[in-house]
Amino acid sequence: MSATNTASAEKGRGDPIDLFSSDLKVVNLGLESFADNLRVHGVEVVQVDWKPPAGGDARMVALLDRIASSSRVDVEAANAVAVSRILKGKPTLVGVGTALDTVPGMTKTTVLHSGPPITWDRMCGPMRGAVIGGLIYEGLAATREEAERLAASGEIRFDPCHHHDSVGPMAGVMTASMPVWIFENATFGNRAYCTFNEGLGKVLRYGAFSREVLDRLKWIETELAPIMAKALAAHGPLDMKNIIAQVLQMGDEGHNRNRAGTSLIIREFAPHLVRLAASGTDPEKIAKVLTFMHGNDHFFLNLSMPASKCTVDAARGIEGSTVIIGMARNGTDFGIRVSGLGDRWFTGPASRVEGLYLPGFGPEDAALDIGDSVITETAGIGGFAMAAAPAIVQFVGGSPEDALAITRRMYEITLAENDVYRIPILDFRGTPTGIDLRKIVETGILPAINTGIAHKEPGVGMVGAGLVKPPENCFRDALSAFAERYTN
Amino acid sequence: MSATNTASAEKGRGDPIDLFSSDLKVVNLGLESFADNLRVHGVEVVQVDWKPPAGGDARMVALLDRIASSSRVDVEAANAVAVSRILKGKPTLVGVGTALDTVPGMTKTTVLHSGPPITWDRMCGPMRGAVIGGLIYEGLAATREEAERLAASGEIRFDPCHHHDSVGPMAGVMTASMPVWIFENATFGNRAYCTFNEGLGKVLRYGAFSREVLDRLKWIETELAPIMAKALAAHGPLDMKNIIAQVLQMGDEGHNRNRAGTSLIIREFAPHLVRLAASGTDPEKIAKVLTFMHGNDHFFLNLSMPASKCTVDAARGIEGSTVIIGMARNGTDFGIRVSGLGDRWFTGPASRVEGLYLPGFGPEDAALDIGDSVITETAGIGGFAMAAAPAIVQFVGGSPEDALAITRRMYEITLAENDVYRIPILDFRGTPTGIDLRKIVETGILPAINTGIAHKEPGVGMVGAGLVKPPENCFRDALSAFAERYTN
Repeated sequence: MSATNTASAEKGRGDPIDLFSSDLKVVNLGLESFADNLRVHGVEVVQVDWKPPAGGDARMVALLDRIASSSRVDVEAANAVAVSRILKGKPTLVGVGTALDTVPGMTKTTVLHSGPPITWDRMCGPMRGAVIGGLIYEGLAATREEAERLAASGEIRFDPCHHHDSVGPMAGVMTASMPVWIFENATFGNRAYCTFNEGLGKVLRYGAFSREVLDRLKWIETELAPIMAKALAAHGPLDMKNIIAQVLQMGDEGHNRNRAGTSLIIREFAPHLVRLAASGTDPEKIAKVLTFMHGNDHFFLNLSMPASKCTVDAARGIEGSTVIIGMARNGTDFGIRVSGLGDRWFTGPASRVEGLYLPGFGPEDAALDIGDSVITETAGIGGFAMAAAPAIVQFVGGSPEDALAITRRMYEITLAENDVYRIPILDFRGTPTGIDLRKIVETGILPAINTGIAHKEPGVGMVGAGLVKPPENCFRDALSAFAERYTN
Repeated sequence: MSATNTASAEKGRGDPIDLFSSDLKVVNLGLESFADNLRVHGVEVVQVDWKPPAGGDARMVALLDRIASSSRVDVEAANAVAVSRILKGKPTLVGVGTALDTVPGMTKTTVLHSGPPITWDRMCGPMRGAVIGGLIYEGLAATREEAERLAASGEIRFDPCHHHDSVGPMAGVMTASMPVWIFENATFGNRAYCTFNEGLGKVLRYGAFSREVLDRLKWIETELAPIMAKALAAHGPLDMKNIIAQVLQMGDEGHNRNRAGTSLIIREFAPHLVRLAASGTDPEKIAKVLTFMHGNDHFFLNLSMPASKCTVDAARGIEGSTVIIGMARNGTDFGIRVSGLGDRWFTGPASRVEGLYLPGFGPEDAALDIGDSVITETAGIGGFAMAAAPAIVQFVGGSPEDALAITRRMYEITLAENDVYRIPILDFRGTPTGIDLRKIVETGILPAINTGIAHKEPGVGMVGAGLVKPPENCFRDALSAFAERYTN
């Protein structure tokens, strides 16, 4: 080593460089093929994984510059407000209600679904399956065929959960009779709603609608929800921010791993549940509720989602802010909403999920990315907090090292570190919070999302789980719109 | 850099070495003060943290050699048996009983305690406090003074829990009327027993014996234990190996952090507990049991301890094995037992615990290291699995990086990696299992132990938690005894 060093140190500045001399050392930025060519000739090359800003897209670079230098908008100040509202949020579980009575704008012929707006003819298989199941569950149709006719007839109003202060996992179908968790952001007063989790496998949200699925939904409506409503009333409002902070110390990330969260919910409510037996509730029915929660580690997902929704919703509509306050997928489109751009969706094609499959299924069976559960990532948990949940890789694939790397990367596209949600293994660093549209476009780093995988056909159900990246164009389109609105 | 390198590269082999030349680079093994001296003179020194075998103790090195070369004993083969019995163990919770009826050798005037054998006059403050409380609880004394007289009278038989297939946290006092968890190693049939956990703060095991403490013990005896006994009977035997495997994926290490374990126990039994209301148990009493467990994250400790005890007990008494099958402290002495050396204890002075104190307390208040809870480390969890529980550093001190380092170091004194207990962040590596007496003496690495800190006076209670190292001499004494027995 020192001999080589000496030779190169002694070479005068004016000497011509021999490209393939063994003295030569190269630091290569960007395209690795150039480095490979040099290595073939024995040249020592250090490859730096550098990308030009905005992937070298001159138009995007110009837009970023225009936004940065515009006197019409102070993005930093606006984002500071948005982030502070996200950090100050206190998601609190305050009640259980029925969608029709509780969710704003709900009617008997409304079907809410996940993701950005979509019409029946463009819906993917699992969403169609869930709509079919929802219509039969509501008594609006008796068979699959009847339900399909009704769905196509124009008599049913399809609308995104997000347009009704709600979120729904996977197909995200919510109909009038379904019970919902009611969340309130105790700091800002805004509310959010979500259905109850049905478990894994053959369930409505994965597009299954068999008798078993519908019977379970009816049991949730007539027994589980009323019993949990009473237990919650006895318990009083539950500080979900505290619970989420704890689960991040217990190997959950709040999206695809919810074993700790479900455990904490059970222990929080168990004393109140058993007391219901003293006031006339059949102990066997209470036991069935506890058994159901114990057997379904995703029970907590439908709590972490509305907790996240009412947290980020407080940062909606802040003039000049580039903070992303909504990401959602309907299985056909992936869409985002940006704080400073009102309620407009920017969409791109839903992506394929990379992950692990249940026995008997493979990538050829998979629907595309679907569900509102990415609201957890939008709020800085889920994939963004994967380092807190290394055991999740057994469910979604990859290695624990990947889980750490994913969280570390998310700090590059966020504006703050959460002061309550902390990751022990990263020395209690706060989770990456407040996704900045500008940073995504500039770095080309896309939000990391943990997700389930539905079968592409209606009526089947869950086939796996994995990681997914959203389509890049929706972020670029949003940045264009932002520049147009704030710099023209 | 290259200039210096060049000069030293050009120096001929025959040249005399100038000790303080700037060309000189030194790799220093061992004593760092030599390196410091060189650094003062500008010499570049790489310090290697090397220790001579057995800390340079020639007698120990000779003993290790004698054991290794002895034709009378095949330690590797014996240890392979011992380790395989530990790995094959299936700790299972099978019942709840009363100490008098259940624990072998128990009598109405027996008081079991933690650690190696000890007489009343040598007991530390918290153990005396717990003995006083135990005698009052049993109705054998009415006041502190009466209890102290009785304890000193010779009418009470003091005996280690370990001599009765039992383990007890901190003072470890077990008396005749106390309810116990009954564990069975489903593979080998041996049993282990432990009292119920009372919570933190002012509790018997930390030496407190006020009315509040005794009332709680009575409630545990008359309500908690009978109710849990019925729930367990309805549930059926609980596979504790599976539960411990899970808690290691949920941020617990099974000794000083038991939040996940306690949660899993609650969710496991909650459905069966609520069903008791249908057969006449007052729901309010069941609710109180659930509230108590919910409010006491150490509830699981008294389950992980007997689970560990019946796991390692299956490796007792294997001729020629250097595997440590018992570590325990009574607050005065720390003691170990070695598989190939029968039931003999090797003891040294109990150590001071390094840790964090509750508000209002400091190191001057602390009793020395005490309790049988180090059975968890003996079985390869607790401090040995600290990497699984980075959040524990908030309770015992240090940083998450320390937690990782401690687990990694324990691989150097153990013989195997557990095939069921795995640590996600270490890429699912099995916990370091099967502590080898030889390796401790050879490397000088002592077992890492997480522990609580009791007040040194009787009657006070818990003052903190931390990490502790056992005294080195007991391992050296055990090695001497081993060599004497197997090589002379």
